[in-house]
Amino acid sequence: MIQFQCDYNEGAHPLILQRLAETNMEQTVGYGLDPHCENARKLIREACECPNADVHFLVGGTQANATVISSILRPYQCVVSATTGHINVHETGAIEHGGHKVLALPTNNGLLDAEQVRLALKSHFDDDEEPEHMVQPGMVYVSYPSEVGTIYSKAELTAIRDVCHQYGLPLFVDGARLGYGLMSPESDLTLPELAKIADVFYIGGTKQGALFGEAVVITNDALKKDFRYNIKQGGGMLAKGRLLGIQFETLFTDKLYFTMAKHAIDQAMRIRDVLVKRGFSFLMESPTNQQFPIVTNAQYEELSKKFLVSYWQRMDDDHIAIRICTSWATLPENVDSLIEAIPY
Amino acid sequence: MIQFQCDYNEGAHPLILQRLAETNMEQTVGYGLDPHCENARKLIREACECPNADVHFLVGGTQANATVISSILRPYQCVVSATTGHINVHETGAIEHGGHKVLALPTNNGLLDAEQVRLALKSHFDDDEEPEHMVQPGMVYVSYPSEVGTIYSKAELTAIRDVCHQYGLPLFVDGARLGYGLMSPESDLTLPELAKIADVFYIGGTKQGALFGEAVVITNDALKKDFRYNIKQGGGMLAKGRLLGIQFETLFTDKLYFTMAKHAIDQAMRIRDVLVKRGFSFLMESPTNQQFPIVTNAQYEELSKKFLVSYWQRMDDDHIAIRICTSWATLPENVDSLIEAIPY
Amino acid sequence: MIQFQCDYNEGAHPLILQRLAETNMEQTVGYGLDPHCENARKLIREACECPNADVHFLVGGTQANATVISSILRPYQCVVSATTGHINVHETGAIEHGGHKVLALPTNNGLLDAEQVRLALKSHFDDDEEPEHMVQPGMVYVSYPSEVGTIYSKAELTAIRDVCHQYGLPLFVDGARLGYGLMSPESDLTLPELAKIADVFYIGGTKQGALFGEAVVITNDALKKDFRYNIKQGGGMLAKGRLLGIQFETLFTDKLYFTMAKHAIDQAMRIRDVLVKRGFSFLMESPTNQQFPIVTNAQYEELSKKFLVSYWQRMDDDHIAIRICTSWATLPENVDSLIEAIPY
Amino acid sequence: MIQFQCDYNEGAHPLILQRLAETNMEQTVGYGLDPHCENARKLIREACECPNADVHFLVGGTQANATVISSILRPYQCVVSATTGHINVHETGAIEHGGHKVLALPTNNGLLDAEQVRLALKSHFDDDEEPEHMVQPGMVYVSYPSEVGTIYSKAELTAIRDVCHQYGLPLFVDGARLGYGLMSPESDLTLPELAKIADVFYIGGTKQGALFGEAVVITNDALKKDFRYNIKQGGGMLAKGRLLGIQFETLFTDKLYFTMAKHAIDQAMRIRDVLVKRGFSFLMESPTNQQFPIVTNAQYEELSKKFLVSYWQRMDDDHIAIRICTSWATLPENVDSLIEAIPY
Repeated sequence: MIQFQCDYNEGAHPLILQRLAETNMEQTVGYGLDPHCENARKLIREACECPNADVHFLVGGTQANATVISSILRPYQCVVSATTGHINVHETGAIEHGGHKVLALPTNNGLLDAEQVRLALKSHFDDDEEPEHMVQPGMVYVSYPSEVGTIYSKAELTAIRDVCHQYGLPLFVDGARLGYGLMSPESDLTLPELAKIADVFYIGGTKQGALFGEAVVITNDALKKDFRYNIKQGGGMLAKGRLLGIQFETLFTDKLYFTMAKHAIDQAMRIRDVLVKRGFSFLMESPTNQQFPIVTNAQYEELSKKFLVSYWQRMDDDHIAIRICTSWATLPENVDSLIEAIPY
Repeated sequence: MIQFQCDYNEGAHPLILQRLAETNMEQTVGYGLDPHCENARKLIREACECPNADVHFLVGGTQANATVISSILRPYQCVVSATTGHINVHETGAIEHGGHKVLALPTNNGLLDAEQVRLALKSHFDDDEEPEHMVQPGMVYVSYPSEVGTIYSKAELTAIRDVCHQYGLPLFVDGARLGYGLMSPESDLTLPELAKIADVFYIGGTKQGALFGEAVVITNDALKKDFRYNIKQGGGMLAKGRLLGIQFETLFTDKLYFTMAKHAIDQAMRIRDVLVKRGFSFLMESPTNQQFPIVTNAQYEELSKKFLVSYWQRMDDDHIAIRICTSWATLPENVDSLIEAIPY
Repeated sequence: MIQFQCDYNEGAHPLILQRLAETNMEQTVGYGLDPHCENARKLIREACECPNADVHFLVGGTQANATVISSILRPYQCVVSATTGHINVHETGAIEHGGHKVLALPTNNGLLDAEQVRLALKSHFDDDEEPEHMVQPGMVYVSYPSEVGTIYSKAELTAIRDVCHQYGLPLFVDGARLGYGLMSPESDLTLPELAKIADVFYIGGTKQGALFGEAVVITNDALKKDFRYNIKQGGGMLAKGRLLGIQFETLFTDKLYFTMAKHAIDQAMRIRDVLVKRGFSFLMESPTNQQFPIVTNAQYEELSKKFLVSYWQRMDDDHIAIRICTSWATLPENVDSLIEAIPY
Repeated sequence: MIQFQCDYNEGAHPLILQRLAETNMEQTVGYGLDPHCENARKLIREACECPNADVHFLVGGTQANATVISSILRPYQCVVSATTGHINVHETGAIEHGGHKVLALPTNNGLLDAEQVRLALKSHFDDDEEPEHMVQPGMVYVSYPSEVGTIYSKAELTAIRDVCHQYGLPLFVDGARLGYGLMSPESDLTLPELAKIADVFYIGGTKQGALFGEAVVITNDALKKDFRYNIKQGGGMLAKGRLLGIQFETLFTDKLYFTMAKHAIDQAMRIRDVLVKRGFSFLMESPTNQQFPIVTNAQYEELSKKFLVSYWQRMDDDHIAIRICTSWATLPENVDSLIEAIPY
């Protein structure tokens, strides 16, 4: 069974395993204060062109989101998110467990709109005479790319950031699949540009070829204080922190992070092109590594004999949207097989 | 600089790295539902002689403690712990962040006493007419071995468990260094016996030769329901869960977990014997991999030129207690060097 | 300025003040264990025809909701509510502060529908193979009457309860305005019937003629244990608990609670009838003490010269929905004045 | 049975009931924004000689403590308190429920010592190289008078404040029994002086002759922002907020608050003097309204036939410490009876 159902089916890029083996018997201090973490921080700051950013390594995405959000909000504040936001749907209420409401705004395509955000903030801060009966928006959360594969343009993301700052709120970008977004042919953003727009964001490792790990980058000075306390409290401070340092060192040497992401995108575009040619429509027009074609029940059943893809959403009695996911590890020959199996 | 300051200075046992490399391009489902996790669960159940136990893999100790405790307590309940308990001191208030007080009882040696626990529970449940003004004890937490290297006898631990059950509370054993306890020459406990005594416990991997990871074992049926929700909410559900499965598969094949722990104990006993012979006294009589000799300021300074050991606690103007830690990875020749450096 | 903007503009029914004065120098124990609270509990159990119900007195509605919900849910569980539910909008995230998501379902009229609830529960419990990535529904919350004045029929509420119980969830009814609902001419529910349907509910005092106070009634045995701990922890255990006992004693003597509610409904119906006759349409068809007519900007401005009513929602450039609220304290002559002022 | 077991056995000062009756049918807006609350704020600012203080009214003490503390601390911070502090013992873990550890320091007399606080803060902020593994002290909490009736001198309290400010922490004074402290013959503090020392404190009403209510006074500008959100979220925003306004208006007119407290102290001193004369020793030397004589079992039994006093603590097999409490409402003739009953 060939698996296309997510972007974390395999282990890690072989170079990462090699580096872990080479450094295995080094003795280092723990908790992310070792030389490998220091070096990885330096490399990430350089890649972001942010010499003053704080960089922290956490194990996973839910943890990274919960820790960043908990570090920013006051108890009575909420985080504004798209309804489809990972924090609103797939983190088992981790944000609420930390005490905060996710104020979810509906979207058609997984992307918030600056005007929509502005109206939500205005309605709370400007229009309500006794706003203290409602949660106060304290930050805005967006995913790049979104959970359904779509991406903001530089202008769109900048506009959201401007609205945030107009109301004194920081913008947090969840980059669990950041590389797949930046390397999309339709992206007009670079990593340094993203780093300038966001107040805090993270560079996903788990879905981008690391064994695990997310690099939180804090560019806004006001959000830096005592962040390590938050990591420790949230259970995210890995004792052998160097495992994260070594991985991100490797990913940010010789642009490996980007090369790997490009590979995933290339394979996804091959699949998309064939789907388009063969007349399929899509739940979502995604220019990244997740593709959401709509297929008939029979087609889904047939595909599932040989390929593992995700059942995403029922469209009508006869059709369902599926998700096909590529990654840094996707074998081109497996894509060949899939393409061959896509019906005309 | 030779490091003896903790038991997680190095990476992992080479077999673990080898297995990670061998399985790297396997495609598996995520979140701990893959065949490696299934197999590791089976091996752990066998090692514990608990065919019905639930076994879950989490990334680290703070997370394991916070998740287990959060899964058990009602909002108004507290967890009873020794003052020296890891949850009371070194987890940045993770338990309180989850809403619960740690009711800390003082000890001389890091070990709770059954009678002490009984009095605390009696005072709340039997003696107070309006106990609802105080937090209600909801579970008891002990560490085996304790944070200062000491261990419970089978009889002592059983007595604590009996008091717990008399009041309807579960007993949770933090086994971050479980192997170092079980392999101590002074231990009279086996893993199956521990599993029969505790309602829930975890088998530490991070400090015992894994890259990271703790295996939570739930033997009490009443505590099993919906545990995976708690893991996910607490940020502990690793996407590539198989990394944990592969590690624990390896540790619980051919008794590797125990062989490695035995090595650490042997090296610690070599150090202890020399310290005793040369007339040093100890902060704590520890039969496990952590040794706490009391040295003069000058001795500490001299030792620190060549060895990294932990400054633990000032005893008086001239003396300090230090911690010397061995592990599965401690090289006997490094112990030779240390022994040579220990003054007469 | 005559005020119709809420149902808590005045103090309390004069009989309540009289009883407080008469009992003022009695010496009683605190925290709700005094004879007045005992008697009030007895009267409420009788009025509910629930001899085994537990009755607790809390100070306010947000507190009552947060305490009841916190006492029921496990950490990874959410409470299902209408989008318009008080807990979802007007409690400053008190439920999330306690760690729980409010899973809000959209409605047209403030009332949940049994089928809608069934689909939400089914989708989580039956359709999802790995539901632990999402919050688990743990209870359902409805308001009777709803926040926009509408009421469930007995059949509708029973159907929701049946769906809840099918999935093992309790049903919680927020009765902040319970009397105004039960005394509505369109209500087919009695208090004993409501008590049979709900697992837990509260009888509102604050908006129904008490100085303050809500009586939580727990009919489901499984929800009774240790509730007083939750009250104390949530800051809801009044030291001079008898103040609540005396108030509810008074309200549930000689059916005062119902007589007062009936008065409010009668005055609201007088206003509604005139509005209907004069051709106004309504945001919501409310048979209770809150009326939501749609008026022109000019009409609103004119009314506001003499009356305080609530600006509720803008309908279009020329029209707004307002809220007119009556209460146990509404003077008929003030309603006369309002009716006179309602334009033709 | 004459009751001396607490200071909230009776209702409220008759003038308060009278004012509630007189204002009962006034129509006012809710939530503390009415003219009575405004006036009470003004009177309290004047009494404190703090024209810029923010004053908020909450219903009870647990709520006031939880709300103030939650409004100040970051998630990873703790509140420093005496072991005997009300927040550490008798609030059912309300502070922990809000996510924060109470870092309890032992005392002999319920009073923290500036040097003890300094050492605790120094050990965290100055001596520890990796303090992020422990909770960070974020504020200091003291009670005036303490839970065992003792009081700080002006110099002692100022010294604690100075240590707090040296480390950037605010000082919070719990004044549940503030009047009884200020009116003690041994107090060298005035209300304006206290207001200058503390960053935030509250003036207790519940135990000082109000039906209920605590007035939180925030003098430190940095702590003022958005406090009403915290009140609402914590369930402390009374709908008919004016009830609190009217009570504090009355208490702070013609110095009634102080006159009433003086009465309680006078009665307590009468009891103390007799106890001293008749040779009793005390658990605690209290110059306020709570007295803690040590009596024999037989004496306790005899006293309890006619008087309700609190069993406080067993001293040895034959002796117990009891608590005798006076209040604004204590009848001198009841004190006469008690004095008569105190054995020689």
